[in-house]
Amino acid sequence: MDRLNDGHALQRLLDELGRLPGIGPKSAQRIAYYLLEADVEEARRLATAILEVKEQVHFCPICFSYATRDTCDVCSDASRDRTTICVVSEPRDVSAIERTGSYHGLYHVLGGVISPMDKIGPEQLHVKELLSRLASGEVQEVILATNPDVEGETTATYLSRIIRPLGVRVSRLASGLPVGGDLEYADEVTLGRAIEARREV
Amino acid sequence: MDRLNDGHALQRLLDELGRLPGIGPKSAQRIAYYLLEADVEEARRLATAILEVKEQVHFCPICFSYATRDTCDVCSDASRDRTTICVVSEPRDVSAIERTGSYHGLYHVLGGVISPMDKIGPEQLHVKELLSRLASGEVQEVILATNPDVEGETTATYLSRIIRPLGVRVSRLASGLPVGGDLEYADEVTLGRAIEARREV
Repeated sequence: MDRLNDGHALQRLLDELGRLPGIGPKSAQRIAYYLLEADVEEARRLATAILEVKEQVHFCPICFSYATRDTCDVCSDASRDRTTICVVSEPRDVSAIERTGSYHGLYHVLGGVISPMDKIGPEQLHVKELLSRLASGEVQEVILATNPDVEGETTATYLSRIIRPLGVRVSRLASGLPVGGDLEYADEVTLGRAIEARREV
Repeated sequence: MDRLNDGHALQRLLDELGRLPGIGPKSAQRIAYYLLEADVEEARRLATAILEVKEQVHFCPICFSYATRDTCDVCSDASRDRTTICVVSEPRDVSAIERTGSYHGLYHVLGGVISPMDKIGPEQLHVKELLSRLASGEVQEVILATNPDVEGETTATYLSRIIRPLGVRVSRLASGLPVGGDLEYADEVTLGRAIEARREV
């Protein structure tokens, strides 16, 4: 079964699995054989989950994160603090911040970051929608949680310049040493930031 | 979306992906978000490939490898050398050997290895079927390609004892240093085998 003929179900599965991120030919084969040996119900559950996620999940019309109901779990949760909006680049960043359990406000997903190289400016992102959420006057703080890389910093700088004049407090996630990390292995920029942002104890 | 409510399509997909071998929570999330962003056709192709592999793939009634037609691709290929049978433990081993391009004979998949601890003896494996394939007299050599571990060696020893009296040549895959490997990092058993099995050059 070196290279199976194209009509072969196993080869088709290997091809499709191989397209997934982080799945090389070896992993694809391991998963394909696992599914071949699994009972048919398990395989069916996986296939159904894939189809249902595409059918049921859409963008929340308020924050542009993923939602299965009209609005997403966070926007429709009455217990969240509606005076704070955390601005992130992608829906996956919402999951990352939710996992910390440290944040109880709302989100706004930009759908990318400003990147002139890729012809992505503020018009291609959900910036207009963010500004209209701020117009109500309910929001007191915007946390800019784009990645600490060039595009993320550019986007944060741009947003802070247009949001601050609206009288809303603007903050940025702290940069510093990773918890449990080792000073010796930190890159110079991170270590430099950690020194600048040192706190009195 | 820390822990999404159970009825949530994304959480169901994360759970199902997390069951696959080699897929931890991080990889499951990466794949789920990839599928969310992918176009619906790609997700559908993957789901279909999973379902079809379960519907269309069955065991070859001759060699017990996977087959989509009546018999598997190897058994139904008239150009294969029918005087040699390579005995392996699992269908995935057939793929591994086929990828080498060095073997042109037939296969026989045992469906496991002898393992008294797991109550697997020759009766639980496709040994009877192997012996009836040898009964025709066409086969001149059986290559025992079970893994070079305890169960694999036990199984090979058992099979060689019952096959040799039938007047069929029995061989075993060579043990030795992996090609491109480093002598320094080879374990003692492998290095010992490589010395015993040294070849004049």
